[in-house]
Amino acid sequence: MAQTFTEAELKDIYTFALDLGRRAGKILVDGVEKRTGAAGARDMGKQEEKMNAVDIVTQTDLDVEAFVKDEINRKYPDHKFIGEETYSAGSSKQYLIDASPTWVVDPLDGTVNYTHLFPMFCVSIAFVLNSQPIIGVIHQPLLDTTYSSLVGYGAWQDDAHDGGKQRKRLPLVNSPKAILPKEAPKGCIFSCEWGKDRRDKEGGNMWRKVNSFVNMAAEIGGRGGKGGMVHGVRSLGSATLDLAYIAAGSFDIWWEGGCWEWDVAAGIAILREAGGLITSANPPPNPETDPIEEVRLGSRLYLAIRPAGDSEGETGRQAQERVVREAWKRVQGLDYSRPGA
Amino acid sequence: MAQTFTEAELKDIYTFALDLGRRAGKILVDGVEKRTGAAGARDMGKQEEKMNAVDIVTQTDLDVEAFVKDEINRKYPDHKFIGEETYSAGSSKQYLIDASPTWVVDPLDGTVNYTHLFPMFCVSIAFVLNSQPIIGVIHQPLLDTTYSSLVGYGAWQDDAHDGGKQRKRLPLVNSPKAILPKEAPKGCIFSCEWGKDRRDKEGGNMWRKVNSFVNMAAEIGGRGGKGGMVHGVRSLGSATLDLAYIAAGSFDIWWEGGCWEWDVAAGIAILREAGGLITSANPPPNPETDPIEEVRLGSRLYLAIRPAGDSEGETGRQAQERVVREAWKRVQGLDYSRPGA
Repeated sequence: MAQTFTEAELKDIYTFALDLGRRAGKILVDGVEKRTGAAGARDMGKQEEKMNAVDIVTQTDLDVEAFVKDEINRKYPDHKFIGEETYSAGSSKQYLIDASPTWVVDPLDGTVNYTHLFPMFCVSIAFVLNSQPIIGVIHQPLLDTTYSSLVGYGAWQDDAHDGGKQRKRLPLVNSPKAILPKEAPKGCIFSCEWGKDRRDKEGGNMWRKVNSFVNMAAEIGGRGGKGGMVHGVRSLGSATLDLAYIAAGSFDIWWEGGCWEWDVAAGIAILREAGGLITSANPPPNPETDPIEEVRLGSRLYLAIRPAGDSEGETGRQAQERVVREAWKRVQGLDYSRPGA
Repeated sequence: MAQTFTEAELKDIYTFALDLGRRAGKILVDGVEKRTGAAGARDMGKQEEKMNAVDIVTQTDLDVEAFVKDEINRKYPDHKFIGEETYSAGSSKQYLIDASPTWVVDPLDGTVNYTHLFPMFCVSIAFVLNSQPIIGVIHQPLLDTTYSSLVGYGAWQDDAHDGGKQRKRLPLVNSPKAILPKEAPKGCIFSCEWGKDRRDKEGGNMWRKVNSFVNMAAEIGGRGGKGGMVHGVRSLGSATLDLAYIAAGSFDIWWEGGCWEWDVAAGIAILREAGGLITSANPPPNPETDPIEEVRLGSRLYLAIRPAGDSEGETGRQAQERVVREAWKRVQGLDYSRPGA
């Protein structure tokens, strides 16, 4: 039987998750200090001096996950916990999320960025109930910026500003909420990632991605009519932050395959609460008319559209669905499966 | 005859440029407030309410350039000024930089990001003497982060941190300075941009870029031996910030064509002072042995390699040159020319 929570309980969980994200981020920043040498000379013992950058990052990743898991276990001992590090170490790649209250955590998304001290990395914490992410926290510690949501209470950005904190509702452009371009994907910012599958094989994921990117980017009329002439193409190296920027309205369309639950759970919670849409990356047989289904957490295939305002003759939701279909006409299906899917 | 400046004069110019970048950034942030509505309800008159987002951005861009130009003219009336907005409005696309003391300014780089409130936009201010950028300031106002340099005095990042300011020397990873991977481009972060030229034409710039991106990304052995298996591909939508992140060591290789002087002048000053290398994007006839020439400001073709530490049997500079040649073997020459070039 599905467990239920009172409004007060959910608010407590949200407050706890926000604080937890920031404390976890502090550990990541301490790891950065070690590497830039600020604290390194003072604090590092002989043993740590022998660790190279990759060792430090791997250890920090494990430390942050252990910290987050401990804190959750102490406060909510009967909740389930799924973290990237513990999960990856196991052998099963089955769906692990059921109706139970479950925390889904990526202690460090954007590991390569973290290694290179590029600030586009984050802690991602989601609370999932009845298989739906209903609370999300994405914290960028180096920028001191947090994206978060509680179902029914809005999605928010908190950032450091003039020495204080400022809280803004997502999407950021909201007076009025920006409408989606009439000729979308033309005029849109398209967010995508090259990923790890780089096999140079016709029909492989890299080539399906590249063909899709070029379709979205090429001039109108190009690519046999598939040219989408997007306004810009962005690749940050963090799926979690791609979703946060979609929720903020900074990016319009995000299309990606291969992510796991912990990469997207918090982002999905925030995006939905901000008014965004998320469905499958892979076009159905008839992109023009087939139903646009809600994404399944763990499907590994994602197409997200930013929150959109109503305009004359079209609601925001209708505009989002129009953009989903225009994207589907231009992208190729990706091949990321999992046992049980 | 070339004009000379004393050390004290140059330090004054650097201090002035730093302050100017931050004040200009403040105007950009005020423009953001108008759009997110925080200040909008209070401050916007009836006329401004009628302006759409694009109008506000264009106006802000012009306002910032006018502000920067006025401040420079007041303090240094005998210096030349080249700004994106004033230059673009004119008809000439000749080289405009000579031996005179010249300020080269982009009031807003990453305009599309600014329109979408994605924080990867900046003010870029360079001071150029004898055709060489010797002072650079790149300020990201939404992140309150500044990259800057004065020739001979180092390159620096200043950012807001725990409510205060922190100054770090570039590159950020510097104890010891990170060495470049032995199998580069494998292991590197490759930074590139899709740009505005989207003609779907074999031999056009979009296809030359895409072929180059795929060569850099594909598995080792793929693409007829050209596969570079870079660790990650990043596209931010701001050439200026790409260069700042190369100087910081956050990105390893930046390859781009089509930029103008104001997009790169400050970044080149900062990158060189941090110990980076910048040359032409277009491979010479023999990439293995032809000399690696210093880039010409205004050539519109750029390949930048991050600062690199020495390792056994190889200086940092030798490693950078090795990476230049490995990149040249994988990229196709781009077609961006200018009158007088």
